[in-house]
Amino acid sequence: MTNRAAPIAHQRAEHPQKDEHRKLPYEFREHDSKAEVVWNRTSVTAAMREKLNGHAGKCVWFTGLSGSGKSSLANALEVELNRQGYHTMLLDGDNIRHGLCKDLGMGEADRTENIRRVGEVARLFAEAGVIVITAFISPFRTDRETVRRLFDEGDFIEVHVDTPLDICEQRDPKGLYQKAREGKIRDFTGINSPYEVPTRAELTLNTAYMSQQEAVGQLLKLV
Amino acid sequence: MTNRAAPIAHQRAEHPQKDEHRKLPYEFREHDSKAEVVWNRTSVTAAMREKLNGHAGKCVWFTGLSGSGKSSLANALEVELNRQGYHTMLLDGDNIRHGLCKDLGMGEADRTENIRRVGEVARLFAEAGVIVITAFISPFRTDRETVRRLFDEGDFIEVHVDTPLDICEQRDPKGLYQKAREGKIRDFTGINSPYEVPTRAELTLNTAYMSQQEAVGQLLKLV
Repeated sequence: MTNRAAPIAHQRAEHPQKDEHRKLPYEFREHDSKAEVVWNRTSVTAAMREKLNGHAGKCVWFTGLSGSGKSSLANALEVELNRQGYHTMLLDGDNIRHGLCKDLGMGEADRTENIRRVGEVARLFAEAGVIVITAFISPFRTDRETVRRLFDEGDFIEVHVDTPLDICEQRDPKGLYQKAREGKIRDFTGINSPYEVPTRAELTLNTAYMSQQEAVGQLLKLV
Repeated sequence: MTNRAAPIAHQRAEHPQKDEHRKLPYEFREHDSKAEVVWNRTSVTAAMREKLNGHAGKCVWFTGLSGSGKSSLANALEVELNRQGYHTMLLDGDNIRHGLCKDLGMGEADRTENIRRVGEVARLFAEAGVIVITAFISPFRTDRETVRRLFDEGDFIEVHVDTPLDICEQRDPKGLYQKAREGKIRDFTGINSPYEVPTRAELTLNTAYMSQQEAVGQLLKLV
């Protein structure tokens, strides 16, 4: 990920006291924050961190039903990237809900906020020059598109783990489908909450018809 | 940061089907999440990422009044660490409020949530083997202590930028103290919102009495 300098340059050009403005350690960026905030300029750029790492920061975003194989694939991809010397981080949906997003439930608004936060964190990792891999159901198209817009073109790789619902339900690794069918879990994606299939994913994988090795091979070509 | 394996080991020991449990790609951790979640085991550990980086991940947490010099010092520290080849990330209070925490205001509950989120993100960066530097007023002691508990002993370095209020107000780099005095900003730390001085900071710096170079020198000894 390179530094997104475009909006800043734009603001600089419009600023009446251009030279004065350049001297300041902060700048005024458009924002919709609830707080009174000013952007603090920092000296170490994403490009400098990437140079140190020897590769660009980016985000590989896995989306798909519960039980589709997102976490397994994300993990397998990270293992291979780490083996090859890439600097990585894995953000797993369930794990992030133990910490950063533990205050959020599975209703629509909370799911949207969950994905918003994870998108922002993924962007921070990309700015740190890290290849960040995320595994979240992320069922809503607009939420995924909002995250995509945080990244430069090409730095957000959406991977749809397109395992059919009946196979996910058959696997049911954590017994959640059963609970959902019994009405013990509300808002369960695929059962009583929608999944909006990606229309512009960089890669679609159906784990019912390919080995993990094969899938990782396809992923490595894109990263 | 090493892997915090203690709680897992504890749970494993109590699990009746110990061997069965070990085979699963997930485990049951205690949590207070609003969602039904299970911890997904991942293969690439913090130690593996740290090995790749050549140093441990940790958090240098700057706290102090607005205008005390937190952002400047955080920036200067990152510049020096980057120059020396350390993998770093800088999380700046104002900047994070443009993104991850833009939904939060400056009231007490929102400040607490702001610091909670940043603490969780800082921990993720430490797990990625990165030296994460944070610059947040973080005025409440319990909030800072909650963040500290996310880290292993020695991996959380609290730095109190202890510049006196009158000097911060004199500097007033963004004109915020003036606005607060005029009643145009509510909940402004030091004016109409409290700052709880750290009692166990690893380092206390008073920027009124030392150069930036001197301060960075002291910081580098701790990181």
